[in-house]
Amino acid sequence: MVGKRLATIVSAGLSKFGRREGLYGRELFAEAAKEAYERCPNLIPKKDIKALFVGHMGESYEHQGHTGPTLADWAGLLPVQATRIENACASSGVALRLGTSAVFSGMYDIVMVGGVEKMTHRTTSDVTEFLAMASDFPFEQWHGITFPGLYALMATAHMHRYGTTEEQMAMVAVKNHHNGALNPKAHMQKEVTLEKAMSSRVIAWPLKLYDCSLITDGASCLILTKPELAKKFTDTPVHIIGSGQASDAIGLYEREDITTLKAGKLAGQEAYNKAKVKPQDVNVAEVHDCFTIAEIIAYEDLGFCKPGKGGSLVEEGATKIGGKIPVNTSGGLKSKGHPVGATGVGQAYEIYLQLTGQAEKRQVEGAEIGLSHNVGGSGATATVHIYRRG
Amino acid sequence: MVGKRLATIVSAGLSKFGRREGLYGRELFAEAAKEAYERCPNLIPKKDIKALFVGHMGESYEHQGHTGPTLADWAGLLPVQATRIENACASSGVALRLGTSAVFSGMYDIVMVGGVEKMTHRTTSDVTEFLAMASDFPFEQWHGITFPGLYALMATAHMHRYGTTEEQMAMVAVKNHHNGALNPKAHMQKEVTLEKAMSSRVIAWPLKLYDCSLITDGASCLILTKPELAKKFTDTPVHIIGSGQASDAIGLYEREDITTLKAGKLAGQEAYNKAKVKPQDVNVAEVHDCFTIAEIIAYEDLGFCKPGKGGSLVEEGATKIGGKIPVNTSGGLKSKGHPVGATGVGQAYEIYLQLTGQAEKRQVEGAEIGLSHNVGGSGATATVHIYRRG
Repeated sequence: MVGKRLATIVSAGLSKFGRREGLYGRELFAEAAKEAYERCPNLIPKKDIKALFVGHMGESYEHQGHTGPTLADWAGLLPVQATRIENACASSGVALRLGTSAVFSGMYDIVMVGGVEKMTHRTTSDVTEFLAMASDFPFEQWHGITFPGLYALMATAHMHRYGTTEEQMAMVAVKNHHNGALNPKAHMQKEVTLEKAMSSRVIAWPLKLYDCSLITDGASCLILTKPELAKKFTDTPVHIIGSGQASDAIGLYEREDITTLKAGKLAGQEAYNKAKVKPQDVNVAEVHDCFTIAEIIAYEDLGFCKPGKGGSLVEEGATKIGGKIPVNTSGGLKSKGHPVGATGVGQAYEIYLQLTGQAEKRQVEGAEIGLSHNVGGSGATATVHIYRRG
Repeated sequence: MVGKRLATIVSAGLSKFGRREGLYGRELFAEAAKEAYERCPNLIPKKDIKALFVGHMGESYEHQGHTGPTLADWAGLLPVQATRIENACASSGVALRLGTSAVFSGMYDIVMVGGVEKMTHRTTSDVTEFLAMASDFPFEQWHGITFPGLYALMATAHMHRYGTTEEQMAMVAVKNHHNGALNPKAHMQKEVTLEKAMSSRVIAWPLKLYDCSLITDGASCLILTKPELAKKFTDTPVHIIGSGQASDAIGLYEREDITTLKAGKLAGQEAYNKAKVKPQDVNVAEVHDCFTIAEIIAYEDLGFCKPGKGGSLVEEGATKIGGKIPVNTSGGLKSKGHPVGATGVGQAYEIYLQLTGQAEKRQVEGAEIGLSHNVGGSGATATVHIYRRG
């Protein structure tokens, strides 16, 4: 017996992820909103939708803050209340949680949640700097460490404690590129071999180019309603039955243990408890693979395997499509791409497709229960959501 | 008969506003949190507080985003869920609304809301640029218009339509500087004369130096509980009985009428309806005087006078302490200062002091009902909250 329905996804939209030259982020959001509206012809956005919660990480990319009302305008929703959330790469995971809460609490019958980021028009060095703002300024950024370096520290600690190998990390990349090649909206729709991943250039040892996620443009959105209203809008609802969010110190140097993300574990526990679901009940999951080591740590934090066994889990093929617990069927941040503010709701979009049988070549047969796991920075924020087919 | 209590303020804290050299924003937030904890000795922050919602406008000032968990850490709240809101200068007005909703909906018994900005260590030109990110990039920023220019457009439209004068705008400055001189936490605790304000240098005609609010460092916070729990923590609760939020187009060029802020009017109507309170019931108000013209427009949007009569209202002295409806007793953004992310909750702090009889030399005698009005950018976001003495 699973937990109560908190809110119901009645529609979803995702812009094509990739290099979207000549467009503003708000235009990508309009593209995602258009898909969501088209899936849901009974909905009259301006009349029915009462609030918008959007994740947007960086005002620096487009020199544009105050994104809430801007996206409300481009989605045809003015004068609806519109709130921008920034929790680093977990911005839209938090937006999803706020939207879910707003519906569950009875405040609104119908809300939109989403996220956006436009990144590829900037240089890699600009983007690296803007992303680094999600780490600690005085003790991290100031000393020149950026996210590949922070995750490399976690990777070496994990290798040292558990014997995790560079090959196992590369296997995450191979799997996710395989899945991304099946996803027409993915940024990089191409397979990579283990040899190619292993021989790619070192970014921050032990992390190589193919251990890192992509700099991507994209937007995502969901329309959430009270469960009782869902049938009015769709024959294929997906219910959100669990939600968790937790925080940790922003600086890696403050953590007791850097082989795990405490916030990810706590958010997972909260979501599992709320959903009355166990890790082994999950049929498909999207986890935050900003670097390959992050996916391995996520397996462990979410209870898909014991601590230290994440490397073996991917090596055994358990997380492939067709395996025991398929992870990142969309291609993940690694291959679908990582438009940071859009990622959390983008993960929910994939789960929505999977649980409604719309995932085409990457469909997990008979998937009933899905999970999404979204991490901000090096783990100072994490959100976990659990879904079931309606 | 006023409306239902949505949530109750049981404690509040405000850092000293001003030039706070050598401190990070997180340290200012710790200062505000410390005051809130000291006012509320029965509270055990880490155990009792279940969520933190914080307004923080600009990641650029301190090259620091991901402020939610960072402030949670500095307020001793980890691993509590912590969310950063960015809605321009209305960031913590929105955080207050989210915290109020979270309590009212029954999700959490006790939450903290707050805001922070550290600005004065940057050059005025940097700050002007960072603030401008809250306006439209393609059609405003790109062409070089900044906020003084945008509000100057509203001012000239208001002068043209209603005959509002430069002197009336300057009277807002004179009043707010008088109030700020009575507030030991205000940034600029000094009176200005009408002559001095009128003869100060033009920033963007008709707005002169003394028509503009201050670049300030500061932080603010409130502890909100379910109304039924309030007596456990304080003998002087303040109840939030109304909350409104609305959006408008980000670009001034998209608005039908620039002598009013539609989002401000809508947010006010929502809050008044919820609170079952009329404008004439309000005993004390903090409104968003980022420029003096904004305070005059706020009088009209909030129904303190008819459209076009805001200039006369200040000229008659109705909005002075001792007048019919005292506005910005704290000194307002004009004299208390405007650390943008902290402003919305900073306004609520002043109303808390007024309704609990702690406003000392600027106390409005017998104040029962208060209102705060917080605007983002040139009006694309607005929030209004209404309070009553417990």
